[in-house]
Amino acid sequence: MTNFADRLDAAVHDRGNPVLVGLDPRAESLPPGMLAASAQPAGGAVAAAYEQFCCEVIDVVAPLVPAVKPQAAFFEQLGPAGMSALAAVVRHARRRGLLVVLDGKRNDIGSTAAAYADGFLGPPDESAWGADALTVSPYLGDDSLQPFFEVAQRRAAGVFVLVKTSNPGGGMLQDLVCDGRPLYRHVADYVEQKAAETAGRCGYGLVGAVAGATYPAQLAELRAAMPHTWLLVPGYGSQGATAKDVAAAFDAQGGGAIVNNSRGIIFAHARKPFAERFGPARWQGAVEAATREMIEQLRAETPAGQL
Amino acid sequence: MTNFADRLDAAVHDRGNPVLVGLDPRAESLPPGMLAASAQPAGGAVAAAYEQFCCEVIDVVAPLVPAVKPQAAFFEQLGPAGMSALAAVVRHARRRGLLVVLDGKRNDIGSTAAAYADGFLGPPDESAWGADALTVSPYLGDDSLQPFFEVAQRRAAGVFVLVKTSNPGGGMLQDLVCDGRPLYRHVADYVEQKAAETAGRCGYGLVGAVAGATYPAQLAELRAAMPHTWLLVPGYGSQGATAKDVAAAFDAQGGGAIVNNSRGIIFAHARKPFAERFGPARWQGAVEAATREMIEQLRAETPAGQL
Repeated sequence: MTNFADRLDAAVHDRGNPVLVGLDPRAESLPPGMLAASAQPAGGAVAAAYEQFCCEVIDVVAPLVPAVKPQAAFFEQLGPAGMSALAAVVRHARRRGLLVVLDGKRNDIGSTAAAYADGFLGPPDESAWGADALTVSPYLGDDSLQPFFEVAQRRAAGVFVLVKTSNPGGGMLQDLVCDGRPLYRHVADYVEQKAAETAGRCGYGLVGAVAGATYPAQLAELRAAMPHTWLLVPGYGSQGATAKDVAAAFDAQGGGAIVNNSRGIIFAHARKPFAERFGPARWQGAVEAATREMIEQLRAETPAGQL
Repeated sequence: MTNFADRLDAAVHDRGNPVLVGLDPRAESLPPGMLAASAQPAGGAVAAAYEQFCCEVIDVVAPLVPAVKPQAAFFEQLGPAGMSALAAVVRHARRRGLLVVLDGKRNDIGSTAAAYADGFLGPPDESAWGADALTVSPYLGDDSLQPFFEVAQRRAAGVFVLVKTSNPGGGMLQDLVCDGRPLYRHVADYVEQKAAETAGRCGYGLVGAVAGATYPAQLAELRAAMPHTWLLVPGYGSQGATAKDVAAAFDAQGGGAIVNNSRGIIFAHARKPFAERFGPARWQGAVEAATREMIEQLRAETPAGQL
């Protein structure tokens, strides 16, 4: 199987856009009627509703975008039934030809990190969860990340390391200046080194970075400092960032970055102008329209227009 | 229900020791015969074996120690079947009167962090996984930790934040000097503030810290700097730290710290002198003997002897 960086590059070029649809199901935001009013928050009925909802979202976006990003937390919140739903969602997305970036922000040391990597990364016949890539956190240092890189290399999978996150509190540690550089630059330099070592034909490596759209100046700084690193850019839409804010994440050819949007797409039925146009009963239409709108915005206002 | 800090303090005093038994099942280390030779690594048979093994370990250690720490990674490695086994293990440990610290090192932002906290923290009738406490990673900053603290407060649960981890690579980020202090001290000061704000009758708060036994000098520094903070101390035994190394983690009365041992206890049947004395068929005897040995070592060589 082709390495992850080249598969992602091919998928982005094939669809002609870098949109990463976040699958963040929340019971209180599901389209009306999808969740029976009697269902308990931790019950299997919620897990079944999450699975149905996410699979229907996947059916809508599969012809349009290169990849989806299920958020592990919302499935884990439901206990084992939720985890079974997550597995079904990952399988369905892959069957529909989407790359799956599982957002788990996992991290641990040595053989424990290797267990996470073994479970999450790789094709479904080699790993239990079968994701194409996983997000990981760097606080535990290089020997906590290396096992993820090694498994990813073996299984043609990818790893996105948190570098500069999109939340307001991210700077508490990430912006601390250590030896003359902010902490996130230390992480970025390490990630870029690993990305360069694993660069595929597209010029990018299997080790990517999470860099939030809510900090456009740092996004531009990281794009320049990390020429071999795929950027996964959260913060678009609901978190306030616009197409202009993410423009700096791309290389000159419009590659090298994928831009996440979760609530703004999957719950588009509840926001203007889609609420009026489709109504809750035609929520899939709202998902499609919101996806197309984001694709157009990125094409019009960022280098992704050249894809 | 009494707050987590006081429940942990009561359990440590009741058992008269601070041993935290790590439940890190690994297929290749299970006692002979527990896993059928034909079982596939990702199969439900392995999950069933993990559940049986961990529940039997729990039965042995429940009268002896205050708490257990299941490692989420080894269960997640098996996919949904492993997660069902994890839920059964947590339930069994609580039924046997043990506190459960789930080692998941989770982290995310805002409502996503709240979803993890809701799922993992609290009694089984309020949360899907029903753990007494969860380990979390701090890279995402204060607004990624606050949701865990809030849910923990509401549900009489606890949170252990990674501060100074036991692995060799932990220093890569944690020891970087920022504004005149190493990064781990920035995290430690934040954690101590949150612990002080939530201090129970025992003087410790619901927010604890992970501080590795493999760095005894920093352990002493953190004990002094964090007078309201429970320390969860990994690194004892298989990772090389001794009772002398962890002595500095305790307060003058022998409280304030729990010391983890995973492989050294649960796989004691494979190490000297227990291998000869019990043999693999009597592996439960080896677990009990190794637990009692660790309890005696901590009583003899640390302030925990005063419990």
